Amino acid sequence: MSLYDELYTLCKERRILEGISEHLGWDEETYMPKGASQMRAEQLKQLATLIHQKKTGSQFTHALSSLIDIETGEIADSTLTQAKKTSLQRLRRDFLIARALPTSFVAKFAALTSEAVHVWQEARKTNTFSLFYPYLEKIIEMCREKADRIGYKEHPYDALLDEFEPEMTTKECDLIFTPIIQKSKQLLKNSKPLDDSFLNKSYSKNKQAAFGENLLDTIGFDRNFGRLDFSTHPFSSSSHPTDCRITTRIDIKDPMANIFSILHECGHAFYEMGLPKEHYGSPLGESVSLGIHESQSRFLEVFIGKSLPFWKHYFPKLKKTFPSQLGAVSLENFYFAIHKISPSFIRVEADDVTYPLHVMLRFQLEKQLVEGSIKASEIESAWNSLSGELLGITPKKASDGVLQDVHWSIGSFGYFPTYLLGTAYAAQFFEAFTQTNPDWQTRIEAGEFNFIRQWLSENIYQYGRQYLSKELVKKVTNQPFSDSALLKSLEEKETLLTNKL
Amino acid sequence: MSLYDELYTLCKERRILEGISEHLGWDEETYMPKGASQMRAEQLKQLATLIHQKKTGSQFTHALSSLIDIETGEIADSTLTQAKKTSLQRLRRDFLIARALPTSFVAKFAALTSEAVHVWQEARKTNTFSLFYPYLEKIIEMCREKADRIGYKEHPYDALLDEFEPEMTTKECDLIFTPIIQKSKQLLKNSKPLDDSFLNKSYSKNKQAAFGENLLDTIGFDRNFGRLDFSTHPFSSSSHPTDCRITTRIDIKDPMANIFSILHECGHAFYEMGLPKEHYGSPLGESVSLGIHESQSRFLEVFIGKSLPFWKHYFPKLKKTFPSQLGAVSLENFYFAIHKISPSFIRVEADDVTYPLHVMLRFQLEKQLVEGSIKASEIESAWNSLSGELLGITPKKASDGVLQDVHWSIGSFGYFPTYLLGTAYAAQFFEAFTQTNPDWQTRIEAGEFNFIRQWLSENIYQYGRQYLSKELVKKVTNQPFSDSALLKSLEEKETLLTNKL
Repeated sequence: MSLYDELYTLCKERRILEGISEHLGWDEETYMPKGASQMRAEQLKQLATLIHQKKTGSQFTHALSSLIDIETGEIADSTLTQAKKTSLQRLRRDFLIARALPTSFVAKFAALTSEAVHVWQEARKTNTFSLFYPYLEKIIEMCREKADRIGYKEHPYDALLDEFEPEMTTKECDLIFTPIIQKSKQLLKNSKPLDDSFLNKSYSKNKQAAFGENLLDTIGFDRNFGRLDFSTHPFSSSSHPTDCRITTRIDIKDPMANIFSILHECGHAFYEMGLPKEHYGSPLGESVSLGIHESQSRFLEVFIGKSLPFWKHYFPKLKKTFPSQLGAVSLENFYFAIHKISPSFIRVEADDVTYPLHVMLRFQLEKQLVEGSIKASEIESAWNSLSGELLGITPKKASDGVLQDVHWSIGSFGYFPTYLLGTAYAAQFFEAFTQTNPDWQTRIEAGEFNFIRQWLSENIYQYGRQYLSKELVKKVTNQPFSDSALLKSLEEKETLLTNKL
Repeated sequence: MSLYDELYTLCKERRILEGISEHLGWDEETYMPKGASQMRAEQLKQLATLIHQKKTGSQFTHALSSLIDIETGEIADSTLTQAKKTSLQRLRRDFLIARALPTSFVAKFAALTSEAVHVWQEARKTNTFSLFYPYLEKIIEMCREKADRIGYKEHPYDALLDEFEPEMTTKECDLIFTPIIQKSKQLLKNSKPLDDSFLNKSYSKNKQAAFGENLLDTIGFDRNFGRLDFSTHPFSSSSHPTDCRITTRIDIKDPMANIFSILHECGHAFYEMGLPKEHYGSPLGESVSLGIHESQSRFLEVFIGKSLPFWKHYFPKLKKTFPSQLGAVSLENFYFAIHKISPSFIRVEADDVTYPLHVMLRFQLEKQLVEGSIKASEIESAWNSLSGELLGITPKKASDGVLQDVHWSIGSFGYFPTYLLGTAYAAQFFEAFTQTNPDWQTRIEAGEFNFIRQWLSENIYQYGRQYLSKELVKKVTNQPFSDSALLKSLEEKETLLTNKL
C-alpha cells in the first residue's frame, strides 16, 4: 500500500465514524424515543472522542507528516497528482486547526455548550435573556481563546469564520454584504402591501405531504439513496453519498413552508449525493464549505424554486391538489405572493429580500462580541436596536429576537455569514447556469429538471473539496466572487414587484 | 477511581459502541434507503473492529487481569461485593472466548459469512441448495475450528451452544428436549381439523396497525423509551434500556401474526427496558443469555398472550375493531382457533405445539454437521427426511425447508436450541408466576398488566447477568430447570383441545 493510500485508509475510518454520528443526529430529530436523549448524547460523545483521536492521533500524524511537511506545507512526493496534492493540503489545514485546540480545551468547550444549549432552551421558553447571558459570556471568552489559538491576521473573527468558510475573511464579507444590505433595505422600504391571504387558508396535512413527496420525485430525488421525513426544524443529513436524508415540516396554514423546505434540503442532499463516492473519506469526496453547501440549497430553493417557469410547471398541479384554496388564484397573483416582502422577526421565516438583513444583524453583533466592543450582557438591547435599524421592527420578546437561534448556545460563532455567502454564491452560479443553458426556462416549464443537477454535478459536485469556495466560483463562472449577481437578482425582483409579469 | 471502576469505564465504552451498532441494525431493517446497504456494512464492520479492540485490547486486558486471574479465575480483592465478583467472572468468561479467536480468524469468518448471506438469499430465491452448500461446508469447517479453539468437554457443539447459552450442554438439551418432542409429536398426531377460516378473512392494515399500537400501550409499553415500526421480519432491538425498539409486520389475511409478534417482541423489550440502567455496560446490566431473553418473549406471547383471561379482555375489543370478520365468532371458537395445531414448513409461522419440532429438526442436523456425521452436501435430503419424521410433511422446495432460516449463512450454529430452551424456561417461570399470583386470571381479565411486568422485573430483569440461566431458573422457581412445566402446559393444551372451555 502506498503512503498516500495508508493515509487515506485512516481518513476513511474517521469519515465512517462521522457518518455514523451524522446518522445518530438524524435519528435524534426524527424517530428516537424522547427518553433516550441522555444516552444518545453519550453515544455521540464517545464517537466524537474516537473521531478526535483519528484526527490527531499518532498514527494519523505520522502518516500525514510523512507525505506533507506540517510546518511548511511542502509535499515530499512531487509525482503525486495535483488532486492528491490538494487533498494533502486540505488535510494539513484541518490538522493544524485540530492540533491548535488541545483535548482539554475541546472537552471544556463541549461541556460548556452542552449545558448552555439546555439553558438557552429554557431561556427562550421563558423569554428570560438574563438566564442565558452568563453562558454566552463564557462561550464568547472561549471563542476568543479559540481564535487566538488558531491564529488570524486581522480580526479574531477571521479565525472563527475560517472554520466554516475556509480562507474567507471578515473584511471580504463586509465588502460583499454591504451593497446587498443597502439594496435589501431599499427594497424593504419600497415594498407595498400585497394580498397573499389565499396562502393562509387551511391546507390539509396529508395533501401537503403527498404534494411534497411527489415534488421530490419529479425533481429527481432518488429514494434508493435518500428519504424524506418530518422534524420540528427541516434539515438535511448525509451519512454517505448513498444515504442522504432530508426532513420537512408541515404547517397547515402555510403550504409554501413545506415546499421551499423540501427544495432547500433537497439542494443540500443533491450536493452530498453528487460527491464522488470513490473519494469518500478524502477531501476529494467532501464538500467545499458551509457557504458552498448553502449555495446548493439556495440555488434550488430560491433561484429555481421561486422562478416563474418552475411555477408555470407546478402551479397547475398545486391548484389541482388544493382546488378550494387556489382555484380562483391566477399564476400571477400566486407568483407575487411567494415573492412578497415584509419584515419579520424570525430569520428562518424571512423572505428572500429581508433574509440578508437577518444575517447581517447576527454578523455585526458577533464581530462586536468577539472583538469585545460590546458585552454579552448588552447583547439583547444591541440586538433590538440593530433590528430596528435594519428591519425597521423591534422584537417585543427575546424568543423573537436575541434568543431565536441555537447557534450561539452551541458555540457556532462565525457560522451565520455562510448563509448569506451561500446565497451570493448561488446567485453567481445561477447566472452562469442560465448563460450555459439559455433554454432553461422552457425546459423547467416542461418539467425537465435533470439538466440542472447535471450542470451542478459537472461544475460543482464532482470536484469535492479540490477548490476553495472563491476558487470554485471563479472556475465555474469565469468571474471573481462578487456581490453583483445577487444585486442583479434583487434588482430584477424590484422590477417584478413594480410591474406585472 | 478504583480499579473496578476503571474496568467498568472501559466496558461501558464498549457497550456504547455495541448500542450504536444495534441501532444501525434497526435502521437497516426499517428506514434505511436500500442503496445505502454497502456503506452500512462498512459502518458496522468499523464498529465491530473497535468493539473487538475494546474487548481484547491491552488496556482492557490489563484492567481485567489486575482484578481477576485470567487463568485461574481467582479474584484479587476479596472485599468486593458478590455482584462485582460475579461480574468479573462473567467478564473473564467473555474475554477467554474472545481471546480464543484470533483477529485473523474473526475477520475470515466475517468475510465468509458476509458473502454467504448473499449467496443464501439468492439460493433461497431460486430454490437452489447447490448454490449455498459450498459456503455451508466452509462455515461448518470454521465452526468446528472455533469449537476447537474455544474448547469443550464432550461434544464440539457444546462450545458453539455455550456462546449463546453459557454453560448449557448438548447433553442437557437432549435430555430436556426429548420428552417435549415426544409430547409434541403425539399432540400433532392426535390433532383434529378445526375451523379457523374467520382468521383468514381480510383484516384492514390500518385497523390492524391501530389495534397493535393500542395493545402495546395497554400492556404498558412506554413510548418514551421505545417505539413500534414495521419490518419484513419482526424483531426487537435495544441500544440501551432507554431506547428499545420493536417491529411487527401486518398480513391482511392473518391478524394474529401482528398481535403475537407485538407481544413476542414486547417481551424482549420489557426485559431490556428492565435491566438496571445504573449497571449499563457491566454484566450486571446485561441479559443472561439468548434462552432467557427468548423466555421473556415467549412468556408474554404464549403464556400470557394465548391465555383465556387475556382474550376475555381483548377479544371484545378485537371484535369491535373487526365486526364484520368476528361479529359472529364466539370467544370459545376464537380461542380454539388461536390454539390450532397443524404441521407447517416454516418455523416462524408454526403453532406452539409444532414449534419445538422445528427447533429439534435444526438442533439434530447441526449436531450431526458439527460432529461430521453428515456432510453439508447431504443436508437437504437429511432435512427433508427428518422433517417427514418429526412433522409428517416433506418440503417440496428448499425455501420451505433447508434454506428457510438465515442462521447458518451468518454462522450462527448453536443458536436454534435457545428458542426451545426459552419456551421451557418461560413455562417454568410462568408456573412460579401463577403460584405467587393466584388471582392472575381475574386481574388479566380486568385488563391489569403491570403486575406481570413487576413480577418479571423483581424476579428476572433486576439481576442482569448475575446468575447463569439454570441458576436463575432455580432461584425464581425453587426447582431445578426441567421439562416438566412445559410438558404440563402441553398436556393442558391436549385437554383443552379435546374438551370445551
